[in-house]
Amino acid sequence: MNFTFKLENKYPASAARTGTFYTPHGAIQTPVFMPVGTKATVKTLTPRDLEELDAEIILANTYHLFLKPGDKLIKEHGGLHKWMNWDRPILTDSGGFQVFSLGDRRKILEDGVEFQSEIDGGAKHFLTPRKVMEIEANLGADIIMAFDECAPGDSDRTYAREAMERTHRWATECKKYQIDPKKQALFPIIQGVIYEDLRIESAKFMADLDLPGIAIGGLSVGESKEDMYRILEVLEPHLPKDKPRYLMGVGSPEDLVNGVLRGIDMFDCVLPTRLARTGSAFLPEGRVDLRNAKFRDSEKPLQAGCTCYCCQNFEQSYLHHLIKEKEILGLKLLTIHNLHFLLQLMRDIRREIAAGTFTKFAKSFLGRYKPMK
Amino acid sequence: MNFTFKLENKYPASAARTGTFYTPHGAIQTPVFMPVGTKATVKTLTPRDLEELDAEIILANTYHLFLKPGDKLIKEHGGLHKWMNWDRPILTDSGGFQVFSLGDRRKILEDGVEFQSEIDGGAKHFLTPRKVMEIEANLGADIIMAFDECAPGDSDRTYAREAMERTHRWATECKKYQIDPKKQALFPIIQGVIYEDLRIESAKFMADLDLPGIAIGGLSVGESKEDMYRILEVLEPHLPKDKPRYLMGVGSPEDLVNGVLRGIDMFDCVLPTRLARTGSAFLPEGRVDLRNAKFRDSEKPLQAGCTCYCCQNFEQSYLHHLIKEKEILGLKLLTIHNLHFLLQLMRDIRREIAAGTFTKFAKSFLGRYKPMK
Repeated sequence: MNFTFKLENKYPASAARTGTFYTPHGAIQTPVFMPVGTKATVKTLTPRDLEELDAEIILANTYHLFLKPGDKLIKEHGGLHKWMNWDRPILTDSGGFQVFSLGDRRKILEDGVEFQSEIDGGAKHFLTPRKVMEIEANLGADIIMAFDECAPGDSDRTYAREAMERTHRWATECKKYQIDPKKQALFPIIQGVIYEDLRIESAKFMADLDLPGIAIGGLSVGESKEDMYRILEVLEPHLPKDKPRYLMGVGSPEDLVNGVLRGIDMFDCVLPTRLARTGSAFLPEGRVDLRNAKFRDSEKPLQAGCTCYCCQNFEQSYLHHLIKEKEILGLKLLTIHNLHFLLQLMRDIRREIAAGTFTKFAKSFLGRYKPMK
Repeated sequence: MNFTFKLENKYPASAARTGTFYTPHGAIQTPVFMPVGTKATVKTLTPRDLEELDAEIILANTYHLFLKPGDKLIKEHGGLHKWMNWDRPILTDSGGFQVFSLGDRRKILEDGVEFQSEIDGGAKHFLTPRKVMEIEANLGADIIMAFDECAPGDSDRTYAREAMERTHRWATECKKYQIDPKKQALFPIIQGVIYEDLRIESAKFMADLDLPGIAIGGLSVGESKEDMYRILEVLEPHLPKDKPRYLMGVGSPEDLVNGVLRGIDMFDCVLPTRLARTGSAFLPEGRVDLRNAKFRDSEKPLQAGCTCYCCQNFEQSYLHHLIKEKEILGLKLLTIHNLHFLLQLMRDIRREIAAGTFTKFAKSFLGRYKPMK
């Protein structure tokens, strides 16, 4: 059956759990990290690279694809899966986050958002919950997100409530206008900035919609890590147990571990791919910048014992050379490594939860890993 | 035995021939096209991509690697093959072409060339034939080129002779100072600009050095195609029959066919990889620019019937989107296709020579293919 979530291990010492979420394009083992393929490509990688990394699901951005090349074109070409040659699950966001980031060039109305974007030369657009459901149906992902208003992390309480209530109304509309609930799982998005009572109210409202999953938005938009962890802890008892919980836009190694500890099942973030393109890599001890002169003459692999294509075949001196010379291969090899690092971390986390040793694992990982921002 | 050249088919109706050249890293079927990996990477591709394309040999540039990261570093890391993870044959050029392209910032002396390059911040260097032999030994390619002076296509006769005679002396020195002729095949380079008598004199001189192969330089540096084809025809009877003949820096589809017709066995060129990075692709009917709006909505593969990863998995509308959005995947997919196109052309050429039908094939190919400069 589509969109069943089978909870497999509930880890007694924390809110962490493992599960399997079934979609029309296959099952996803949770907790899961989803690589981001903004414009229908995970930057620098082929779909085959992603299969070799064993990415189980990827994300694509509705906002970008709606503007270029247009969701209708993608539909006419068989939908995102066929067009980009990826036949495992896909999740599309709703465009909400990007539209609200436009600042001056967007106007929030009760029934939707009017905006202009330089991506398509400044044409006027009006996105409503109903319109977003049409676009996401055209794109054809397995999991689609409801249209939401992502208020900034420093919003005052009054505005936070206003945006949250609008998000609730829009989620209800999305559910009403969703094109095909058998083909696509709609996830609503909890908002409420960093106000605990608003977050709880939003969680209850969204849970009552009884959709196949639930997401937490607005927690990587300027608030502190402490606020993020606090809100996750406050929310956890109010989230449905039997549905996957998706923390949007979060995906540093330390946040993945901390999120799972607080009951999160799904994550996405551009961090691993973006860092790679600036020449940085995740290692068990923290982030490193491959341009650093200490790598110039090093015969070591990027990470000893790592099984990714980059670490199995190239040494640090070669990666240093490629990054210094701005060679595309360097960006690609670091992208492969960084995604492998996070995907392997999630596989480790699932194993540790199942073995009943996750708290110890988390403590050890967080003690060792230095984010180095 | 290393560096044997086995001539397999001498095609009676033209100077075309097929053969096999044996090197320490394996045999090369000729005629062959060599993808260019300037800085120890064929831009956008992994070594595995190149193996899948069945590239038999690649080229790397001595000038760039000498300056960054330095040939000594590469030697200490096991040589080019190990460092870049490519265990098939490699050819390195001598740096001559790049050094002479520096114009004002190089000074030609009888025993070598003094130059400064912005690549390493303007440090002074002095390259001599002996020094180039050391550098190429450190890099460790299977085929190494002698240091030559590549005079421009519009050089007058006096200068052309002077540069040619210097190139002859330098080739003799390279032979004398070559580090290990059992591990590396040294090829001398025929010069003489577009003067037929100079070219013949140079061919005879270089043939007399009796090295494992012979190259023709200075034929893609500003002279016309007609001049290039004329010089190749004049040279052919004077080239050793039993050694591979390498036409340097030439590799458009029409030049490959025309070169083989005139007795050439080896080619290299940045054209397929560079064109790909500007969004252009080779098709049997000629070059196309993927940014063209006619591809926006097309469901066709880039080239019908093509067996490359790009054509087997993606349609023109997706490639158009990737190129328009400057996505690295687009550059990579076109690079794969363009290299496949040339490598497949060489496989076709070998088959047609062996079948005794190459003249007809060449006529048909050249009649159909529009270079579209």
